[in-house]
Amino acid sequence: MTEDVRMERDTFGEIAVPNARLWGAQTQRSLQNFRISSEKQSPELITALAVIKRAAAEVNLGLGVLDESKAKAIMQAADEIIDGKHPEEFPLAVWQTGSGTQTNMNLNEVIANRASELLGGERGEARKVHPNDDVNRGQSSNDVFPTAMHVAAAYAIVKHLLPALKTLRDTLDSKAKAFADVVKIGRTHLQDATPLTLGQEFSGYVAQLDHGLRHLESALPHLYELAQGGTAVGTGLNAHPQFADNVAAAIGKLTGLPFVSAPNKFEVMAGADALVFAHGALKTVAASLNKIANDIRWLASGPRCGLGELSIPENEPGSSIMPGKVNPTQSEALTMLCSQVFGNDVAVNIGGASGNFELNVFRPMIAHNVLQSIRLLADGAHSFNDNCAVGIEPNRERIDTLLNESLMLVTALNPHIGYDKAAQIAKKAHKEGTTLKAAALALGYVTGQQFDEWVRPKDMVGHPAK
Amino acid sequence: MTEDVRMERDTFGEIAVPNARLWGAQTQRSLQNFRISSEKQSPELITALAVIKRAAAEVNLGLGVLDESKAKAIMQAADEIIDGKHPEEFPLAVWQTGSGTQTNMNLNEVIANRASELLGGERGEARKVHPNDDVNRGQSSNDVFPTAMHVAAAYAIVKHLLPALKTLRDTLDSKAKAFADVVKIGRTHLQDATPLTLGQEFSGYVAQLDHGLRHLESALPHLYELAQGGTAVGTGLNAHPQFADNVAAAIGKLTGLPFVSAPNKFEVMAGADALVFAHGALKTVAASLNKIANDIRWLASGPRCGLGELSIPENEPGSSIMPGKVNPTQSEALTMLCSQVFGNDVAVNIGGASGNFELNVFRPMIAHNVLQSIRLLADGAHSFNDNCAVGIEPNRERIDTLLNESLMLVTALNPHIGYDKAAQIAKKAHKEGTTLKAAALALGYVTGQQFDEWVRPKDMVGHPAK
Amino acid sequence: MTEDVRMERDTFGEIAVPNARLWGAQTQRSLQNFRISSEKQSPELITALAVIKRAAAEVNLGLGVLDESKAKAIMQAADEIIDGKHPEEFPLAVWQTGSGTQTNMNLNEVIANRASELLGGERGEARKVHPNDDVNRGQSSNDVFPTAMHVAAAYAIVKHLLPALKTLRDTLDSKAKAFADVVKIGRTHLQDATPLTLGQEFSGYVAQLDHGLRHLESALPHLYELAQGGTAVGTGLNAHPQFADNVAAAIGKLTGLPFVSAPNKFEVMAGADALVFAHGALKTVAASLNKIANDIRWLASGPRCGLGELSIPENEPGSSIMPGKVNPTQSEALTMLCSQVFGNDVAVNIGGASGNFELNVFRPMIAHNVLQSIRLLADGAHSFNDNCAVGIEPNRERIDTLLNESLMLVTALNPHIGYDKAAQIAKKAHKEGTTLKAAALALGYVTGQQFDEWVRPKDMVGHPAK
Amino acid sequence: MTEDVRMERDTFGEIAVPNARLWGAQTQRSLQNFRISSEKQSPELITALAVIKRAAAEVNLGLGVLDESKAKAIMQAADEIIDGKHPEEFPLAVWQTGSGTQTNMNLNEVIANRASELLGGERGEARKVHPNDDVNRGQSSNDVFPTAMHVAAAYAIVKHLLPALKTLRDTLDSKAKAFADVVKIGRTHLQDATPLTLGQEFSGYVAQLDHGLRHLESALPHLYELAQGGTAVGTGLNAHPQFADNVAAAIGKLTGLPFVSAPNKFEVMAGADALVFAHGALKTVAASLNKIANDIRWLASGPRCGLGELSIPENEPGSSIMPGKVNPTQSEALTMLCSQVFGNDVAVNIGGASGNFELNVFRPMIAHNVLQSIRLLADGAHSFNDNCAVGIEPNRERIDTLLNESLMLVTALNPHIGYDKAAQIAKKAHKEGTTLKAAALALGYVTGQQFDEWVRPKDMVGHPAK
Repeated sequence: MTEDVRMERDTFGEIAVPNARLWGAQTQRSLQNFRISSEKQSPELITALAVIKRAAAEVNLGLGVLDESKAKAIMQAADEIIDGKHPEEFPLAVWQTGSGTQTNMNLNEVIANRASELLGGERGEARKVHPNDDVNRGQSSNDVFPTAMHVAAAYAIVKHLLPALKTLRDTLDSKAKAFADVVKIGRTHLQDATPLTLGQEFSGYVAQLDHGLRHLESALPHLYELAQGGTAVGTGLNAHPQFADNVAAAIGKLTGLPFVSAPNKFEVMAGADALVFAHGALKTVAASLNKIANDIRWLASGPRCGLGELSIPENEPGSSIMPGKVNPTQSEALTMLCSQVFGNDVAVNIGGASGNFELNVFRPMIAHNVLQSIRLLADGAHSFNDNCAVGIEPNRERIDTLLNESLMLVTALNPHIGYDKAAQIAKKAHKEGTTLKAAALALGYVTGQQFDEWVRPKDMVGHPAK
Repeated sequence: MTEDVRMERDTFGEIAVPNARLWGAQTQRSLQNFRISSEKQSPELITALAVIKRAAAEVNLGLGVLDESKAKAIMQAADEIIDGKHPEEFPLAVWQTGSGTQTNMNLNEVIANRASELLGGERGEARKVHPNDDVNRGQSSNDVFPTAMHVAAAYAIVKHLLPALKTLRDTLDSKAKAFADVVKIGRTHLQDATPLTLGQEFSGYVAQLDHGLRHLESALPHLYELAQGGTAVGTGLNAHPQFADNVAAAIGKLTGLPFVSAPNKFEVMAGADALVFAHGALKTVAASLNKIANDIRWLASGPRCGLGELSIPENEPGSSIMPGKVNPTQSEALTMLCSQVFGNDVAVNIGGASGNFELNVFRPMIAHNVLQSIRLLADGAHSFNDNCAVGIEPNRERIDTLLNESLMLVTALNPHIGYDKAAQIAKKAHKEGTTLKAAALALGYVTGQQFDEWVRPKDMVGHPAK
Repeated sequence: MTEDVRMERDTFGEIAVPNARLWGAQTQRSLQNFRISSEKQSPELITALAVIKRAAAEVNLGLGVLDESKAKAIMQAADEIIDGKHPEEFPLAVWQTGSGTQTNMNLNEVIANRASELLGGERGEARKVHPNDDVNRGQSSNDVFPTAMHVAAAYAIVKHLLPALKTLRDTLDSKAKAFADVVKIGRTHLQDATPLTLGQEFSGYVAQLDHGLRHLESALPHLYELAQGGTAVGTGLNAHPQFADNVAAAIGKLTGLPFVSAPNKFEVMAGADALVFAHGALKTVAASLNKIANDIRWLASGPRCGLGELSIPENEPGSSIMPGKVNPTQSEALTMLCSQVFGNDVAVNIGGASGNFELNVFRPMIAHNVLQSIRLLADGAHSFNDNCAVGIEPNRERIDTLLNESLMLVTALNPHIGYDKAAQIAKKAHKEGTTLKAAALALGYVTGQQFDEWVRPKDMVGHPAK
Repeated sequence: MTEDVRMERDTFGEIAVPNARLWGAQTQRSLQNFRISSEKQSPELITALAVIKRAAAEVNLGLGVLDESKAKAIMQAADEIIDGKHPEEFPLAVWQTGSGTQTNMNLNEVIANRASELLGGERGEARKVHPNDDVNRGQSSNDVFPTAMHVAAAYAIVKHLLPALKTLRDTLDSKAKAFADVVKIGRTHLQDATPLTLGQEFSGYVAQLDHGLRHLESALPHLYELAQGGTAVGTGLNAHPQFADNVAAAIGKLTGLPFVSAPNKFEVMAGADALVFAHGALKTVAASLNKIANDIRWLASGPRCGLGELSIPENEPGSSIMPGKVNPTQSEALTMLCSQVFGNDVAVNIGGASGNFELNVFRPMIAHNVLQSIRLLADGAHSFNDNCAVGIEPNRERIDTLLNESLMLVTALNPHIGYDKAAQIAKKAHKEGTTLKAAALALGYVTGQQFDEWVRPKDMVGHPAK
């Protein structure tokens, strides 16, 4: 069975394209020349490109360089893409030309054919809208693609990642408040230390995420600077003098984010520093989440032979044999994806450092990693929140037992009987495997009543976190 | 419209599963609990899991612990998966439990339902084959998943990556031979240096890939060691004493690769060192390919304002304005994917270093990165070979021009007129922007005939590479 | 010859210490237990620790918990360390306990012995000042060491790195202005593109560094939050209620930087996010510098067989044979150290992600990498500035030649003779290796006068960078 | 006070050098031009360079191209350096020219001046031995430096790292044997699982190191290939035809390692793949050591509120307050240095991937990282072995307690009473916090005698590791 095709044409000549598809010659050529693995351009990036095309058409209409019917058709076609109506039309690999030219052309071709149809025309060579002259008007892949990367990254951070992290932060904060009275053993070097409250422990997680939110926000201003209007090498050759500012404004309106035209187009086209820095904030969030997820899976370890201080929700069978075995699967997913973010960071760094002269040609790879990291952290935070964090409960009895067995409570006796006698008590208890109280009484340094009065863990947890 | 569903059940109770799907309760539960990004378990891994399930059924049949009709049905169902007949049945995310338990159960459930149908039974709770008792018989996710990772990685290296690299190696070798007589300027520190042949330059690339092939081969023996038979913690509890060896042999027969049962199951289940080391070989190949791709795009830079020594195939429009502009898009795709491999390496390292006690729970992430890197390098090598390397041609005129303009050919005069006079000639030529010969004649140190006789670049290219 | 020793004592008993040294038992024990490689704690960190000890003594004096003579002696001893008078007293390896306890004790011991001498006492067991009770009063390694890391990093960024980057930024900015009239060929994908000015190209570098400065500044607020006062696990047990705020203020006064007491001590002791994020800004600066250094070494490549657009200072012999060969050694040093910063980033990420419960025990490693990266970037920027950037000059003749040979200038003819005829001209020139003008005249599409009037590269460089 | 200086000279003219120093003009110039951070060329690299210089002099003497007195003096001077007699003479930074030329000249200059003195001459311009013509005879930095990197890395791996790892491996193996009868709880996902012996757990560590040794050995053949004889660009211009093979043989004799002349000099000079791959083996060892160190610190966590299954040596005070608190400081040092190795790996990868044409100019950085990683792993393994591993002892009582409390022993009842009743027992025990036996008796499913007979953990630890 042969597929129904039509012939499309670019400066290299004719090429057969499936008739069912809106894309054209250059997309088809890329498909054939880059049969590399299965990673496709991210949906977030495709949407951002469609936003740019829509904004450019609107601006070109306003500037009088594109006629109204074409402009309206382009805008409508772009809106359909933004609305997710053509998911099958963007088949190109991440691993293509480093400028993303082929994906820019993919958008131009799909929009041109679709707009032509909206105008009552055909798809294909006889189309009523031209991919380059109309859809790509005043643009170059060299400014479109960096613009799309900034738009997609900023949008995904603001609309998905920040809310996800805030949700998790709020859950942990409510836990911190709920656990404010649970005095427990502290651990440093994995070894028993002086006590704190479980609420204090969780307040540290909250503070990590609060800082993470600020770090992400500090990455936004650079991302808000758009390359659009720089055209081929940053000089803006062939672009209308008002194009750059107007497109940035139009994109701002469409996205609700404060985009501006980059004051220096050479920087934003030849480098990728805004994304390198933004990924620096992403990897910092990954470090925080990794610590939180690790603490929680360790505190929930057991049920009998681990630390066992926390209960976490049972979401799926851990083992068909052993009731009570709850594997910390959400922590595992979260720590795995944090490791991926650390790996992605390296790829982004290498790509970002590797621009030459007027262009960085590691763009699709950078976009792929940045957008994947945002998606992983946002979805991971949501999943961890919904399927684990909200259901965390302290095992109060176990926490009490461990706290009371701990030898370091002896510290509380120092002011009353002196360090040397206190140390004798601790050493005796450690050697003989008894409680501190038993050792203290056996040595005759305190009475039972004194011990109970002086050794009060809840008096040792100090100032509350501000 | 409501989807047609059936109820499936696991130890957590009932859950609705789309009736069109073969998977069961645990797969469905994972789908709902891990809605994280879009990365799915790799097809290579699914195939490897099916190979294991087929091998286990065959071995269990042979050992008399599984009845023949069930065993045959399981084998047939597994074969269908291996043949790619059920691509839509493995929907689970990479980001799930770190042991890969849910994907192991996905295989068990799909095979159980499909085998039931093959036996004339139903899919669902009334099925004739049990996911755990029959399909997973003698197995644990804790040994199945590491086994699948080794099988998938070894197979992909041997069957895809090694051949792809050999193809590219052979192309470059044929170029090295074809270009053996093309004397050209050498470059060190990006600066003009003494000459060599273009064939010698390409012979370096061939040697890099020859070493890369050896490095990859040295990673195989560890990958050939399989965890199967270790069951839950490596002790082999509940597995038949012959199960481990027999399954390794059966997998070896199915794949044509010399798999063995790992002599120490604790190592292979608690760590992931074989994969960490294999990725060390992958990243070394990436370093080689990156150097090769970079050299070629630089040597082909221009057409007028770059180095311009090589022509590479034109595969797609570089610019609608400028004929002769050929963007080195295959080099760009290759350098981008090498950067990704360097990033993946970090993720694999972190995962590999993070096992605890009897299990490493970063497995799906490690598998995802290792298999992606293999795919990227194999497909990237093929694409670069077919769409670039085979068509590389020297621009002999340009190469000659540069060679003859170079000042360092003066070195050839040292034995005849001494270093000091030779240096004077070079300095004069550099200062005045003339040829060496013009400067030499102007200074009167040599005759034109002597210059032409003594300054012969092709006598300066030394011993051929062995 | 036996070294002159004295016996020092800690809770493990006696140990011989070189009499010439001020350190005590715990330092000596660490020296013997951690004979690992040659990396020592950074001088910046030792200074920061001395600043903390001085501040703590002053605050303890003010709070009335340390007597004046001891406090003054401690402050004087700390000042001597800050002034670099005891460089040989801090011999401990980076690779020690992960809390940095041993280096904290190194400071405590040296200061105690030195303060004792300042008070007319001895060094050693009979000393007049106690390392723990006096010097470490109200402190724990667990809050001292994180505080020192923040102080050292913030100080090094503000006092060394930011000024170094500003110096380089200003040099590049002066070049951008000086080169504003040098029209040159642009390059994208390493291929000839439309022109821009050399000043515009350099303005991109300036913009990169301007952004880098802002990124670094956005990392400071988190670094300004100090752990001091959290003591063992963050609760502040045994610390005076005013100690935390007062020490932060005292450190602020000593350093001139706006340090504050961290609002949440659990976050700053259990994590290292401020440093992970700060290193994210450092690696972004590395990406920028790498791009700049690479561009400059490529633009200066040659002298005859490279791009040859720039001259850079000759600082050392490049070759004893070839005059005019100037190796871009400053670019090489800079790109090497940027690679190191990318490597360090990974180590910092892993360390930062690996805290457990109340403490992160990867601290000395994190400190080592962060401080090394700051030093590398600051010194590297200075070296590149002084030994390369200030001396960059354009090779105007070469730049003109390349520009005029370029085929893409044909773009300027499009408005006058149409794209098709312009393309014919470019193709003919490319095929025959002639100039555009020659091809244009041969085809008869323009007169020589028209060509000279219409094809003016300097009219193609568009809007100036804002 | 002015330092006593002499004037040295290179092609750039005169420069003042401290009279106390043996180095010359180019070393001095590098010192002044590269004031970047504090990392110096590694001692292992300096030694390797001296070995090359000695071998080259010997070979040149044999080939009759260097007179005997000079050759002998050069060999003697080189021997002094190899013997560590001139540690203060090699002050150059890692961050210099990327070819390592300046450090090659450092060796040439020091040896020339020292050889001159050995011949009764002066140091300085009137020296009797010439740094270039005599010491560097037949060599180029471009082949010397890569050769030195291979020699230094191979030597350090064979002579230091492999023995260190073998020592640790043997200690752990002796522990595995000593602990063969200690049945303990297994842990997967940090959760209680079926039992194994402590000996089995340690056998996994041994197997990891056995594999690590093999991985390292597989990296040696490539390292044994030496660039020497390739001279400037790999063609061997100006080198005697026998020089390459003879030098490799001479270096082999001096080091006791089977070095050969690289069959392809272009590969070894333009790339750094042998080192990239060797570091891939190093990072794999780091992954293994990280897992081992982590397991041990967790198993030794406590003393009361952790897992507490192991006792590790107390080497230093953990806390002045709490007896029995033993911080796992050796594990902390080891995990920190493993993180560093993972970071170094990235730097090596970037450097290795970044060669251009005939030379890789990231050499000093690569050498620095590879040699540091070897040193860290070798010293770290020794330190961990001597100060921790040899003293590890099981806390048999604690291990027994945990094992017997575990619910998963119920698995042993399955064959006798069926899964459903066994599950009821486990669930009851979990819910009520009792022992399995108590729950089993309460439910009336088994007698006490049956329980004791059927539930025997030591029958559950399966086949011994081969």
